[in-house]
Amino acid sequence: MNKQTLFVVKIGGNVIDKQHDLEHFLTQFAQIPNPKILVHGGGKIATEFSKQLGIEAVMVNGRRVTDEAMLKIVVMVYAGLVNKNIVALLQKANQNAIGLSGADANVIQATRRPVQEIDYGLVGDISPESVNTAFVKTILAQDISPVFSPIAHDAQGQLLNINADTIAASVAKALSQDYAVRLIYGFEKAGVLQNPTDETSVINSITPQSYESYKQSGVISGGMIPKLDNAFDALQAGVSLVQIGDAMQLLDLCKNPPVSGTAISF
Amino acid sequence: MNKQTLFVVKIGGNVIDKQHDLEHFLTQFAQIPNPKILVHGGGKIATEFSKQLGIEAVMVNGRRVTDEAMLKIVVMVYAGLVNKNIVALLQKANQNAIGLSGADANVIQATRRPVQEIDYGLVGDISPESVNTAFVKTILAQDISPVFSPIAHDAQGQLLNINADTIAASVAKALSQDYAVRLIYGFEKAGVLQNPTDETSVINSITPQSYESYKQSGVISGGMIPKLDNAFDALQAGVSLVQIGDAMQLLDLCKNPPVSGTAISF
Repeated sequence: MNKQTLFVVKIGGNVIDKQHDLEHFLTQFAQIPNPKILVHGGGKIATEFSKQLGIEAVMVNGRRVTDEAMLKIVVMVYAGLVNKNIVALLQKANQNAIGLSGADANVIQATRRPVQEIDYGLVGDISPESVNTAFVKTILAQDISPVFSPIAHDAQGQLLNINADTIAASVAKALSQDYAVRLIYGFEKAGVLQNPTDETSVINSITPQSYESYKQSGVISGGMIPKLDNAFDALQAGVSLVQIGDAMQLLDLCKNPPVSGTAISF
Repeated sequence: MNKQTLFVVKIGGNVIDKQHDLEHFLTQFAQIPNPKILVHGGGKIATEFSKQLGIEAVMVNGRRVTDEAMLKIVVMVYAGLVNKNIVALLQKANQNAIGLSGADANVIQATRRPVQEIDYGLVGDISPESVNTAFVKTILAQDISPVFSPIAHDAQGQLLNINADTIAASVAKALSQDYAVRLIYGFEKAGVLQNPTDETSVINSITPQSYESYKQSGVISGGMIPKLDNAFDALQAGVSLVQIGDAMQLLDLCKNPPVSGTAISF
């Protein structure tokens, strides 16, 4: 049985912060064949608003610590401003879309992260089991693209801030039972680079074997390691293909086989 | 053929601004039999945020003039903060719900209000034909309550601010083709009062005949007249019953026949 291909595309703040780039990306997203899902982060807008409101953004280990005041800001900016602008722009591009926080239709239920060495505040953890795939499938069946903001709920009335990469991975894993899922991380670089200063040095394909040798030779290091570990984790959970590439080249990333970015597979 | 009863309930800012009142209201809303729809305004939160951000709220004839900066605020507060908090609280009360702006699933398309004597800015006008009833019905059929924020889109990528009473009336009218719609305006008073200073002087029932005599005697005047004109307009368009009453008495308002508030019917 051949499963239908489902694209799960995640974009980060660098795209969201530039209106022209965002429209260029969304015009391409609208052209990918259905079914497809978009997951977005928040970008700098939340930090800027919190500064204007005199609320200090606290980061620990690269993660935002979310107190009540900051949660209000991220809910407003991510689930409100950013999410609704993306949906309105997709409608303009003739792609029907629906913006979702995890509270909407109970689509992603999270548990508040337990306090250990660090108290991240109102931050949630999710797993593929957290995703209400039944509802998502009713939306996809209508050729409507779900647009996920990185906000979930705990079913006790509390909204929680969630890492957008984790939402994308969890949604992709959960739906791989029903679809051949291609999980695409769009960012500001052309892919995983052999040489970080040379945008033409994209590694087209990474397998577990080549990943080990790239790590040993130091070609892949630092922040790229958790990204690739997560990619292999998604493949392990049933996702068909994980890609990392330039959000502005989305149509090339979505070709079969892709003609842009880095493809990660077994 | 007996149509199924659909409750369309609108709540205003006075309920939204008080967390305790809001939870009390939503706990009642969760107990109304499905299908049901909630429409909310924004309350004072948008004005407070705009003040903190140094953006002046401009009102003309009791309506907010919405420039680009103010639209961002109302999208953030109405479609983000208020909408998602309401949805999360309904999930807590075991009522599945989904927050919607008009852009989501193209559910309400508006046209920007033409500039005449006043330029209201990024404000939209809608009609019952603006409502995508097909999508709303797929949601209601799953016992999920749509929760509408007063934001729509123009299908050209522009979000627009909409009067929440108008959203409630348009949604109620549009769905009266398929359901016996009871349209309930919840506010801070017990209903239409004979004596504005006496909360026990509720007029239980208003018909076109009694409305005329109440207007002539001056019992009904001022801001209540457009509200009642809109109520009769909704009845004319097929809504079964329009009610105005205390949002804190929602279960009594929803009884058949209602045991609270003012019922407006032919």
